[in-house]
Amino acid sequence: MESKIVPMKIFADPKLEPAELEELRAGVAPHELLFPARPAGSVLEKAGRDPRFGEAEIAFGQPDPEDIRASENLRWIHTSTAGFTRYDTEEFRNFARERGISFTISSSVYAQACAEHALSFMLARARCLPTGFASGPTGGSEEWQRIRDQSRTLAGSSVLIAGYGGIAERLVRLLAPFGMKLSATRRRPTGAEPVEIIPPEETMAVIGNYEHVVNILPDHEATRGFFDTAMFGGMKPGAVFYNIGRGTTVDQAALHAALVSGPLDSAWLDVTEPEPLPEKHPLRALPNCHITPHTAGGHEGESRTLIRHFLENFRRYRDGEKLLDQVM
Amino acid sequence: MESKIVPMKIFADPKLEPAELEELRAGVAPHELLFPARPAGSVLEKAGRDPRFGEAEIAFGQPDPEDIRASENLRWIHTSTAGFTRYDTEEFRNFARERGISFTISSSVYAQACAEHALSFMLARARCLPTGFASGPTGGSEEWQRIRDQSRTLAGSSVLIAGYGGIAERLVRLLAPFGMKLSATRRRPTGAEPVEIIPPEETMAVIGNYEHVVNILPDHEATRGFFDTAMFGGMKPGAVFYNIGRGTTVDQAALHAALVSGPLDSAWLDVTEPEPLPEKHPLRALPNCHITPHTAGGHEGESRTLIRHFLENFRRYRDGEKLLDQVM
Repeated sequence: MESKIVPMKIFADPKLEPAELEELRAGVAPHELLFPARPAGSVLEKAGRDPRFGEAEIAFGQPDPEDIRASENLRWIHTSTAGFTRYDTEEFRNFARERGISFTISSSVYAQACAEHALSFMLARARCLPTGFASGPTGGSEEWQRIRDQSRTLAGSSVLIAGYGGIAERLVRLLAPFGMKLSATRRRPTGAEPVEIIPPEETMAVIGNYEHVVNILPDHEATRGFFDTAMFGGMKPGAVFYNIGRGTTVDQAALHAALVSGPLDSAWLDVTEPEPLPEKHPLRALPNCHITPHTAGGHEGESRTLIRHFLENFRRYRDGEKLLDQVM
Repeated sequence: MESKIVPMKIFADPKLEPAELEELRAGVAPHELLFPARPAGSVLEKAGRDPRFGEAEIAFGQPDPEDIRASENLRWIHTSTAGFTRYDTEEFRNFARERGISFTISSSVYAQACAEHALSFMLARARCLPTGFASGPTGGSEEWQRIRDQSRTLAGSSVLIAGYGGIAERLVRLLAPFGMKLSATRRRPTGAEPVEIIPPEETMAVIGNYEHVVNILPDHEATRGFFDTAMFGGMKPGAVFYNIGRGTTVDQAALHAALVSGPLDSAWLDVTEPEPLPEKHPLRALPNCHITPHTAGGHEGESRTLIRHFLENFRRYRDGEKLLDQVM
């Protein structure tokens, strides 16, 4: 005797190529996909409210918080991003808890690319790639000697990672063979972290001990402007600052001053506030400030990884197993 | 009763700062340093013949081959470089063997910096750093989407290292956490290499299987022009080529063609032929050819590392222990 399956409805707003869409459809079958009336843009863009949202039990993408509040049927939200700022309020967390809504994110999808991006920044500084690439036939000249002298190895130096989470976990793994002194800050340590964990409120007291400061803080009312004049002022002379978290966590005027007058050697930013950073922004004019346009999480085949991650979580949801990357 | 020490004479031509010179002098005392009549330039420059060379038992730096041949007292040569092309002939090896001269190089001094430089190239390509840094306020635009789509992770891809030696050993260690498929070519494998070793003559047969080809071949009559039209033509479409070995091992016209018409995605070179590469050289005009001016081995405190490495070998020489980085 066959048991009859009642199809679940899954609202999915990520922008997908036909082959990717087919993979998603096949992966959830016999359950049903609902698509937004207005197609979405990039994974970083938020969609608007949608008339069919109320039918869905599951939302995959960037569902509108008002749609979520109005829905009677919603049980699980899976965002297409690692960040989830617009859902990350006490009020939303309470609402999700009361209504029994599970909330998962796509942090695993972007973690490896972000960790590699952070390491690419650290090595680009260590090996003076921008000045090296820009130099002409300099062999043996003073300019050449200067590039060689300013080049470093990461081996043996020290790093503080602000915001230990999925990306930091991967970064720590990538940094292991360099034999560096590694520490990280984390709000709620699990005790299983493979590095020394420092409470965020003690960052100021220890930051002067590190040659590299990697900021992976998410945007949150508690992290906004965390890297301010005092924090930059407390850094080791010649320290290097990296940001692959969120631009709002940095006071950019304070960063500018620390790059012009010290103590910073240089800054390497994948995120800024706002994004994109205007052409005429003072940070763009500094030779020791290097900016990529929020490309840290991007990678060839990203949509496919995103879908497969969702499908694995969908299987877990359907079978009543523990979900991946659950934050509420 | 004290035994009387007969001071050894050490000819040392590296260009050193006073403090570094003092460390060298103190490290070898009570033995005596001899300096060249004409001071040397960078570690990559060769010195000329020197009138006092004949007195020395030990030579540290870039001693002139004719001085070496003319000397009655020389027992040990320690080069200030990792490369040793001008001594690497059958005739010189025979001469050194007959005369009982030990020959060591400074490969350990540069190996970590070179390995980090190679990884910085690999990650700069994977994370599209040059296009990212050069981009303006591109968020959400087609240009932005293109950078994100061309970005990759190293994780899970494949690498062939041509020329397994001290640098490759470090590079393999740094690549371990990326979970890549790693192979290397080596003339005389020891069996202790932690990766699959391929005989150099079989390179052509396997090169099409790798997404990354890292050339660390030294300059030698057997390696000159090793990467030629056939070798580049056999590479996987979209493969990335890196050179941190020696420029002479590459047919640069063939490389240029492979960058313009395929199969190469891009090339990342720290060495060229000649060095520096002239301003008007065709490789400099290609947007997918990225050149650093032979800075891979350079690092802050390099001279000090060079001296300490020599001093450790000096201690071993004096105490009759096995020398580090011995090649003859």
